[in-house]
Amino acid sequence: MTSLLKNTTTASLVFGSDYHTVEVGHILNVCADEPLVLECGKQLADIPVAFQCWGELNADKSNVILICHALTGDQYAAGRHPVTGKVGWWNDMIGPGKPLDTDRFFVICINVLGSCMGTYGPKSINPETGEPLGLEFPVITVGDMVELQARLLDQLGINEILCVTGGSMGGMQVLEWAARYPERVLSAIPIATAARHSAQNIAFHEIGRQAIMADPEWCEGKYMQQKRYPQKGLSVARMTAHITYLSEDALQRKFGRELQNKEKITFGFDADFQVESYLRYQGMTFVERFDANSYLYITRAMDYFDLGERHNGNLAEVFRGTKTRFCIITFSSDWCFPPAESKRVVRALNAVAADVSYAEVETDKGHDAFLLDEPEFKDMVSGFLGGMATYRGVAA
Amino acid sequence: MTSLLKNTTTASLVFGSDYHTVEVGHILNVCADEPLVLECGKQLADIPVAFQCWGELNADKSNVILICHALTGDQYAAGRHPVTGKVGWWNDMIGPGKPLDTDRFFVICINVLGSCMGTYGPKSINPETGEPLGLEFPVITVGDMVELQARLLDQLGINEILCVTGGSMGGMQVLEWAARYPERVLSAIPIATAARHSAQNIAFHEIGRQAIMADPEWCEGKYMQQKRYPQKGLSVARMTAHITYLSEDALQRKFGRELQNKEKITFGFDADFQVESYLRYQGMTFVERFDANSYLYITRAMDYFDLGERHNGNLAEVFRGTKTRFCIITFSSDWCFPPAESKRVVRALNAVAADVSYAEVETDKGHDAFLLDEPEFKDMVSGFLGGMATYRGVAA
Repeated sequence: MTSLLKNTTTASLVFGSDYHTVEVGHILNVCADEPLVLECGKQLADIPVAFQCWGELNADKSNVILICHALTGDQYAAGRHPVTGKVGWWNDMIGPGKPLDTDRFFVICINVLGSCMGTYGPKSINPETGEPLGLEFPVITVGDMVELQARLLDQLGINEILCVTGGSMGGMQVLEWAARYPERVLSAIPIATAARHSAQNIAFHEIGRQAIMADPEWCEGKYMQQKRYPQKGLSVARMTAHITYLSEDALQRKFGRELQNKEKITFGFDADFQVESYLRYQGMTFVERFDANSYLYITRAMDYFDLGERHNGNLAEVFRGTKTRFCIITFSSDWCFPPAESKRVVRALNAVAADVSYAEVETDKGHDAFLLDEPEFKDMVSGFLGGMATYRGVAA
Repeated sequence: MTSLLKNTTTASLVFGSDYHTVEVGHILNVCADEPLVLECGKQLADIPVAFQCWGELNADKSNVILICHALTGDQYAAGRHPVTGKVGWWNDMIGPGKPLDTDRFFVICINVLGSCMGTYGPKSINPETGEPLGLEFPVITVGDMVELQARLLDQLGINEILCVTGGSMGGMQVLEWAARYPERVLSAIPIATAARHSAQNIAFHEIGRQAIMADPEWCEGKYMQQKRYPQKGLSVARMTAHITYLSEDALQRKFGRELQNKEKITFGFDADFQVESYLRYQGMTFVERFDANSYLYITRAMDYFDLGERHNGNLAEVFRGTKTRFCIITFSSDWCFPPAESKRVVRALNAVAADVSYAEVETDKGHDAFLLDEPEFKDMVSGFLGGMATYRGVAA
């Protein structure tokens, strides 16, 4: 691992409503020799990509697990997060003896294009103006995110991926990886995801974007230049999305109609109910770690995602001839990315006789279940990866 | 009908972002002699209530159907709406030969307390200051809405209600009417509703309120004094709520991933998808007919609604001894007020041996189905009302 990281740099990035700076690493510049041509037609050259890794790359580089993060996730999947101070979003999954066993695997997670944790995004400085790019940043796609990841792996000398995995938008990247690089990806675990973004999900994203852009502090995307910040708009966007990540049952079980630190309703607009306080807290903490413009760009990339479209809606054709082994996992109460969307992928893979297993984990935790302690889910990932390691001859 | 309306007045009310005025009627002042004591403890005296009615009240006043409107509905359930110019929200249901047959029944619909179509609400003028009440308006409940309706009916000389019906928040009022006035309400048709607002629904309402209050044009509720208007915030609130009124299947069927007047995605933040244009349109038109502060107050009233709470969570006790006949209707794809919530009411009624029938209409139209052309639903209402009319001896 150390040798891979020796040429990386760090960056001092600004965060939150008070624009405090946080040191973020490891970062490598990529696409210096050959620009990345985005799906929108624009080109990017010599741009930074931030990543984290755990475990050791083995001699024949056959033990690589690539983790793709979700909309508001980042490369700090495990260990201490430099901005929030909390443990990473998949800390339960990555480590010695855990499903992504770092005694056996080399695990890498890359901050996606358009995000705000060190990889090139709207917060990056335009060298010509010395100002943040904001809306000068090009509109990107999930395919663009995957291409940039591929460039980073090229630069690190990693060709083969034993397994690519991730949930939600991470799962979209997993499917995109498998579609673009079937010979490079030995196996894939797309979790709680879909091969296309649904009308309902586009609708919820549109609300989030409207909330951000309606906030006068957004300043047409130039808030950083003016040291302002669309806290309220971004907070409403996060609150809206957050509801879709939970099941109705989970909300009812966790909060029901319980009141927040009071015995009676107050007949006012303060947060009387626990569920209101919880949502407000989710919104408030989110704005301190995420960038509003990144939220616009990444939600748009998800909306544009439709893997079958490139074959006139025939999703099976995307995977024809693939040798990648798939393990597709969904959660029964996930209404944001319902099991039906994953079953559509399973049917497409079956239609071209691909190697696919499918599991729907029974849980009331909704979409967020992939981030939570779900023993059955962990066992599945662990079992599948163990099988892949044995198949590929990765030492235990 | 004419005799009932002879003492009513009209009011010239302001609407929309341009504060144009629209004549609204019929309005009667109520609670002049005996103030209405609200659940929050405050009192209201001599306040206006706006209503509409159709058909003729018969000699023994036994043919009254009271319609309760939903969150953003109003008394213009049928006929031409004075603000939008469109037909009323239940125009398909009310009229000669329609389920609420105006050749047989006298149908009345009352604008709820806190709303903005002529009944006392935050847009009403405080006589002491000459300014709109705004947040001086007291926080109200569904119970308060029902009490005000009862006062109006008293003043009109109407005691007995053959049937009280309504969907969504209208259904909450129906249940509240049946709970408060079992001897006055012969039958009740609560549609697509619940006896308590769920955590998820509170959460969605909270987002709407936060979006409104985050808009600087809201001016802490005093936007009218400054001739400003929180259009963007109210629009986001409406868009969020609107998604919950549709089923995922309906959104997918109506819009899917279809693009709006273009062949390719534009790689930008304009409305590429039809579902985005549709939602923006919903938001835009809504702000021209509704008041932002009313939205805060009425959503709050819904959040506070929990009929069983007054009997320590024992909903059955609310209805013990009732002679009211219930016909409870739900829609299979309604995830805003799912059938399970209505079944909870059915179980409570069964526990006290009340007369209740229950039907779940199969449809993919979601919560909004009660406003749409659903033949099975119409037949049910029609059949139930016919039976009640015969039972009560209302001439055909």
